[in-house]
Amino acid sequence: MGMKRKSIAIDMDNVIADIETNWIDKYNNEFGTKITKSDLQGIPEHEAFPDPAAAWNLIYRPGFFRHAPVIQGAQEALSKLQEHFDIFIVSAAMEFPNSLLEKHDWLHEHFPFISWKNIVFCGDKSVIATDYLIDDHLKNLDFCKGMPILFTAGHNVNVTRHKRVNSWVEVLELMEKELENSI
Amino acid sequence: MGMKRKSIAIDMDNVIADIETNWIDKYNNEFGTKITKSDLQGIPEHEAFPDPAAAWNLIYRPGFFRHAPVIQGAQEALSKLQEHFDIFIVSAAMEFPNSLLEKHDWLHEHFPFISWKNIVFCGDKSVIATDYLIDDHLKNLDFCKGMPILFTAGHNVNVTRHKRVNSWVEVLELMEKELENSI
Repeated sequence: MGMKRKSIAIDMDNVIADIETNWIDKYNNEFGTKITKSDLQGIPEHEAFPDPAAAWNLIYRPGFFRHAPVIQGAQEALSKLQEHFDIFIVSAAMEFPNSLLEKHDWLHEHFPFISWKNIVFCGDKSVIATDYLIDDHLKNLDFCKGMPILFTAGHNVNVTRHKRVNSWVEVLELMEKELENSI
Repeated sequence: MGMKRKSIAIDMDNVIADIETNWIDKYNNEFGTKITKSDLQGIPEHEAFPDPAAAWNLIYRPGFFRHAPVIQGAQEALSKLQEHFDIFIVSAAMEFPNSLLEKHDWLHEHFPFISWKNIVFCGDKSVIATDYLIDDHLKNLDFCKGMPILFTAGHNVNVTRHKRVNSWVEVLELMEKELENSI
């Protein structure tokens, strides 16, 4: 059919990089607390920690982004999606300049099949034009030019706007349907 | 009239950062040559140097991007343009990961009035949607979604495609006309 491949912008933090787990581990380590994922449900990220300012400071520590675990299923899913879609990793990394190289190196390690040509570090994602955006934040999804897809994270469990996906398995199911509908 | 502000994507290298001068200076310093800007006219950048591989290596040196001079008139022009347009700095920095923080810091020093929200470091600029793109490279201008504007650099003097501007004074003249035409 010679269809034009559609494009998907994919957020990093809490979508392919497990920043939530990373943040909890680092906080518990530092302050001897026993915070778990369930403590963060429905609360804006850093506000969920006993000392929000201390939690915020952890993000600026060298290595914070470099050593985050990968979200389950993300590698296999992106590798499969890449067969049918143009995949762009789009991270609002500019707020944390020290994260730029760490995020690049993290992608290079865990997603070596994503070319540097398909990586975007920005501030405001409204300037990005792709057919889909998979993200955990309304501040990005509400202003995107394509179809917004909300990836479940602790802080967004009560959000009712936008199509929601709870895992990379669900993303694959959704995108398979999108592919069928576009033929 | 409540007009929506139009957006301009602005390239860094050879558009606001004088990479050409920087590169020549570093090369002459290293190899005792006396290359001048006129030697680079109409030739793809690094190929213009006697030893292209050595020239290419200079780009990867720490500090290469951090200490580039500012293109004449860029600061005043961007400051003025910002009154009427949404300005985004869009640099294909991902090819040189070590340049990411250097470019961020350079912008912070020389263009402190540009917010981190308006900075984009990417690979392929075709994913950026702005009303205008000011750039020195056809690989970016040919695929942009808005109006392409070719900023003169040594390597592109023979290019005949796209509206050409030779200086930031000419950019201001052009954008003033665009603004009048859009009212």
